[in-house]
Amino acid sequence: MPGVRAVVMPAPRQPLELRSFAEPRPEPGGAVLEMLASEVCGTDVHLHHGRLAGVPYPIIPGHVSCGRVLETGGALTDVFGAPIRTGQVVTFYDVYGICGRCWHCLVAKAGTRCPERKVYGITTSAEDGLLGGWSEQIELKPGVRVLPLPEGVEVLDFMGGGCGLPTGFHAVERARVALGDCVVVQGSGPVGLNALIFATLAGAERVLVIGAPAARLEAARLLGAEDTLDIQAASDPEARVRWVLERTNGRGADVVIEASGNPGALREGLEMLRDAGRYVVVGQYTDAGEVPLNPHRHLNRKHVELFGCWGFEFTHLQRALQLLARHKRRFDWRGLVTREYPLAQAAAALQDMERLAVVKAVIRPR
Amino acid sequence: MPGVRAVVMPAPRQPLELRSFAEPRPEPGGAVLEMLASEVCGTDVHLHHGRLAGVPYPIIPGHVSCGRVLETGGALTDVFGAPIRTGQVVTFYDVYGICGRCWHCLVAKAGTRCPERKVYGITTSAEDGLLGGWSEQIELKPGVRVLPLPEGVEVLDFMGGGCGLPTGFHAVERARVALGDCVVVQGSGPVGLNALIFATLAGAERVLVIGAPAARLEAARLLGAEDTLDIQAASDPEARVRWVLERTNGRGADVVIEASGNPGALREGLEMLRDAGRYVVVGQYTDAGEVPLNPHRHLNRKHVELFGCWGFEFTHLQRALQLLARHKRRFDWRGLVTREYPLAQAAAALQDMERLAVVKAVIRPR
Amino acid sequence: MPGVRAVVMPAPRQPLELRSFAEPRPEPGGAVLEMLASEVCGTDVHLHHGRLAGVPYPIIPGHVSCGRVLETGGALTDVFGAPIRTGQVVTFYDVYGICGRCWHCLVAKAGTRCPERKVYGITTSAEDGLLGGWSEQIELKPGVRVLPLPEGVEVLDFMGGGCGLPTGFHAVERARVALGDCVVVQGSGPVGLNALIFATLAGAERVLVIGAPAARLEAARLLGAEDTLDIQAASDPEARVRWVLERTNGRGADVVIEASGNPGALREGLEMLRDAGRYVVVGQYTDAGEVPLNPHRHLNRKHVELFGCWGFEFTHLQRALQLLARHKRRFDWRGLVTREYPLAQAAAALQDMERLAVVKAVIRPR
Amino acid sequence: MPGVRAVVMPAPRQPLELRSFAEPRPEPGGAVLEMLASEVCGTDVHLHHGRLAGVPYPIIPGHVSCGRVLETGGALTDVFGAPIRTGQVVTFYDVYGICGRCWHCLVAKAGTRCPERKVYGITTSAEDGLLGGWSEQIELKPGVRVLPLPEGVEVLDFMGGGCGLPTGFHAVERARVALGDCVVVQGSGPVGLNALIFATLAGAERVLVIGAPAARLEAARLLGAEDTLDIQAASDPEARVRWVLERTNGRGADVVIEASGNPGALREGLEMLRDAGRYVVVGQYTDAGEVPLNPHRHLNRKHVELFGCWGFEFTHLQRALQLLARHKRRFDWRGLVTREYPLAQAAAALQDMERLAVVKAVIRPR
Repeated sequence: MPGVRAVVMPAPRQPLELRSFAEPRPEPGGAVLEMLASEVCGTDVHLHHGRLAGVPYPIIPGHVSCGRVLETGGALTDVFGAPIRTGQVVTFYDVYGICGRCWHCLVAKAGTRCPERKVYGITTSAEDGLLGGWSEQIELKPGVRVLPLPEGVEVLDFMGGGCGLPTGFHAVERARVALGDCVVVQGSGPVGLNALIFATLAGAERVLVIGAPAARLEAARLLGAEDTLDIQAASDPEARVRWVLERTNGRGADVVIEASGNPGALREGLEMLRDAGRYVVVGQYTDAGEVPLNPHRHLNRKHVELFGCWGFEFTHLQRALQLLARHKRRFDWRGLVTREYPLAQAAAALQDMERLAVVKAVIRPR
Repeated sequence: MPGVRAVVMPAPRQPLELRSFAEPRPEPGGAVLEMLASEVCGTDVHLHHGRLAGVPYPIIPGHVSCGRVLETGGALTDVFGAPIRTGQVVTFYDVYGICGRCWHCLVAKAGTRCPERKVYGITTSAEDGLLGGWSEQIELKPGVRVLPLPEGVEVLDFMGGGCGLPTGFHAVERARVALGDCVVVQGSGPVGLNALIFATLAGAERVLVIGAPAARLEAARLLGAEDTLDIQAASDPEARVRWVLERTNGRGADVVIEASGNPGALREGLEMLRDAGRYVVVGQYTDAGEVPLNPHRHLNRKHVELFGCWGFEFTHLQRALQLLARHKRRFDWRGLVTREYPLAQAAAALQDMERLAVVKAVIRPR
Repeated sequence: MPGVRAVVMPAPRQPLELRSFAEPRPEPGGAVLEMLASEVCGTDVHLHHGRLAGVPYPIIPGHVSCGRVLETGGALTDVFGAPIRTGQVVTFYDVYGICGRCWHCLVAKAGTRCPERKVYGITTSAEDGLLGGWSEQIELKPGVRVLPLPEGVEVLDFMGGGCGLPTGFHAVERARVALGDCVVVQGSGPVGLNALIFATLAGAERVLVIGAPAARLEAARLLGAEDTLDIQAASDPEARVRWVLERTNGRGADVVIEASGNPGALREGLEMLRDAGRYVVVGQYTDAGEVPLNPHRHLNRKHVELFGCWGFEFTHLQRALQLLARHKRRFDWRGLVTREYPLAQAAAALQDMERLAVVKAVIRPR
Repeated sequence: MPGVRAVVMPAPRQPLELRSFAEPRPEPGGAVLEMLASEVCGTDVHLHHGRLAGVPYPIIPGHVSCGRVLETGGALTDVFGAPIRTGQVVTFYDVYGICGRCWHCLVAKAGTRCPERKVYGITTSAEDGLLGGWSEQIELKPGVRVLPLPEGVEVLDFMGGGCGLPTGFHAVERARVALGDCVVVQGSGPVGLNALIFATLAGAERVLVIGAPAARLEAARLLGAEDTLDIQAASDPEARVRWVLERTNGRGADVVIEASGNPGALREGLEMLRDAGRYVVVGQYTDAGEVPLNPHRHLNRKHVELFGCWGFEFTHLQRALQLLARHKRRFDWRGLVTREYPLAQAAAALQDMERLAVVKAVIRPR
């Protein structure tokens, strides 16, 4: 098969296809990368089930990715003003098109809620080019922000974090985790594990993780969780709440971060939270249904602060990457990559991800 | 009937009784007031229905109140250090007993969540003395903070605000209402009307009020609401959401303040809120049931900030009272007092409040 | 003189010149306005004295301005997405070129500190075109944000605010003026007067203004200042501090906003501030020298929060303009315009501004 | 010498004396401790020079201290509600008397600026009892908050932190150190070293320490400072500023914490700070003179946030102690104790502290 090969998801619930595309050339201010790795994340599973609105199928999946610069459309720089060079190993902020001109951008400063916002591998169509990471090459549009991997950071170090890295960072920032806090993380997938890491780095005294399966909880303990609870073993929500209360002097946690995607986690997390605590909801990336809440008991009397947390901004990716470079010995991000797959096995990767058979699955186009 | 007369609520759903008590004397650091006025608020209705947990019936209802100082137990001062004099007309912070020593007070600084916190007329038993405002006299325990009514403020000016005054203030502070915001207030009772006033004073460009009945909505318009919506006329929640979207460029309000007590208002309010907006839940003072939420749509994707808001602190009462003194011509708090009742008609006052036949009902013991 | 006439400041301390330029045409995404009014502000006086670094003389002065749209370079919209039409009366955000790609923009989110930031009439050279407001026409570069004047707002209403409008707004936002605060404003020029207005709108209980000359202080009182102090009459800094302490129960003000440009105001303002108060320094737009501070007494023991405040962002201009539209009857911005000058009398306008003979001077090119 | 021996500082610049006091008995709600250790801090040197205002000489110095509970005046509890037992090794919050009733406590919530605030060993007179730590026993007044040393924390672990522990914690909290920040600490005494530790725990990517002498800078490097600068070697302030700029991409640090006590550090620190950075002034505990600032360059144009930081609150001590218990292996607080002194050698301890011959000097009464 000549040209550039890429995995295409033609439509929800249709088999993935390996298609060939013409070699791309960068637009002025853009770039073309040879792909080295691209993640398989829970969102890709949701995409395959058609659970997100507004996805322009067919798409090439793969949002957070690493590649080698093949060609740039003129001089490019990183955020510090240093030139981006051909041959450099880089990642990029997978969000682009934020307009900087609309009410959300300029007045509300709600960076992730600009209506023009697009995400590689999710809201970009394969009919518009190589705009997803499960491909041998990717086109970076003008304005896409490129970040060289810092010295000492290898592709798999970064891919072990994947999009969970900046998302977990964002959740922890939004939770205003304070020195000495006790934090509960609901969910032990990549977002949850990165929330655990960044909550620790932000000064939490203790982090408790609730999730499944056992391999992910073991990863949580290796990353420093004080204790973990397996929701398959503890299937009673009340027992899970009690487990937290027993570890927090009966008060509940200072901060709870929801990173599970399960609607029921919302109610449960609020019951695990101390009065006047902070709760961040970051895991509900798709619509998985509703949950009943008691406004008096869960919100008003508890004097709670609850923060929805959508996507991440460039600042989160940049700073998360710097901290990964600094702390890669202390936190084994790379160890989260359970398995690597060539392009031709993308369907298997998706399946393993859905079955939670892996912590992190990575597509290696070359 | 000799002695001091007070209205006693013997138990939930039992008739109110007028009982006689011995004349109280102040403890050292305390005071005794001759009561001039005490409010009848929605909480009193809830108390009569037995909807609050932990109420030590029999109680003397009446939390926010005004009186004349009969006697003090030694020298007392206000928060500025000025002496409290016999004969002065004062109100007091109806919360007392906040310990200043526990984890909530000292570590979390969650002033309204101290387990020792007690509230006059709600969590104080008639067996422990004259600790409610529906009485000819009231005992202020040592440590209760006394606030003289500022010059020019008459008893009914202040009572028109009642506990809604500092509660509405607290909600607006917690919402961080910013210059130019569009604010929706759900509920047109005393808390909602005071939220309207303080949101206006805090720089909101526009305040929309949704509630009932017509008389309260007319009060809202007189107090400066840009527009009002009668929930009896617009009984379809979706129509109410549309009403807000039509007035906010299709985006929703910057801030929504729930002051209705209706669980369903939570879901509806979140749908009236713009992305990345702020939502304060202050009206769910009692447990009135549950409401289903969609964590993806209502919280996560919306990138919302949601704040429960419990009670109020001294700072809110103090500052609200100062602003009332300053702005009583601009906002006619006194006009909110629809009717005054002698002690013997407390049951009628309660009934009028329950039927929403009044905006603000005030007991006048003398 | 054919073509488009504009006032040029050829170099510091050189006479202004009236020069003729070719008629401009808009670039794609840009626009050309027929100028209706442009302000003369203290900065223009500083520019004429050569007190700002990095000014690319010759320049056409005039930053905050109003004009009528002559032609647009394709479809333009305002921040709400509404089309900008030919013939419409508009203003524009006088800052442009903020890159949205650098570390300050993306990581620190310090909008006014982007190194690429340019300001019409200040850091734009007359050799690059009609990029200042003291001109019959102005070229708006692609990306310059255009704001139609809201219905009911006339050119002079807005020009009475001028750049002081969004600057004062920014200072008040940064001060986090809270409901009930007592605020001192140092300086009674346009920034100070707008700080007074927006502090009032943000819920300050009282605003005290210290400045000169008498006409500006009278304007302050008309705008609602509780009291004013003439620094020419009260030339002793200690007496001025005492004046504030006497009006604040001996404690000092909750918030002080420096809008004077005098370095000595910094020390004095800190002494007027209560312990744990907030201080905003917004008036020191040029380097006017140094002032000795005592770090123990003025900062550390006082537990102060001090905020420098540079320029303003689009959000401040947008929201300030909306509030002006809403409150133009309550606050007489238009009355601040003391005198209007044709282009040919720009030198006289500058001189009047320097002598403080006017509150607000406005150039009327047509 | 019978009775209880204590070191008395009779007046500024007078020799210390060892005096005998009667055995104290606890008041109801108070306690008596047998002293195990009490720190010698820079403040004690200042006290001996008479540099603090309002000190009621003669005093028994020694504020942050550890002891064993001899007797309590009735049942006492810690902040979690657990009983304080005789024989337990504890420390205590050395501030007491905060009234909880004044404007600063209740309205401004400026906990460290209550006028009634008293500090053991500083604003307590020896004529009023054993109210300082350089003594065989100490009287804890009713309301003094007692904190048992957590399991595994020995007296010298905690004393290595001393009052620098909660003070450094407070400074870091006030600086809002964020994940990924570069932090400069000015000063390498106990406050500076603890600011280094807590900035690291709060997620700083890098901490740079500027101070002297060499032994303290070596301690800083052992505690994880990325780099240190000796002010004795680099005596030129401009060279020190350059040293920071070279390590921060020319931008300056995100956060600077002044912990030096030298007025000149203020100007220098502001020049080390990036635009829109945060600066905390915590080291200026006594009046050591003035420093000239340029309001335009150092504050306004820089868009700085500057926070004075006075003392610490209970929450800082409680949480700092918990984090010390958790991280005592990672950060060798105990190693900061250079030398221990019996009561009789208190004068030598003071002299060693003044000469900076020790990092931390500790008095061991027994």
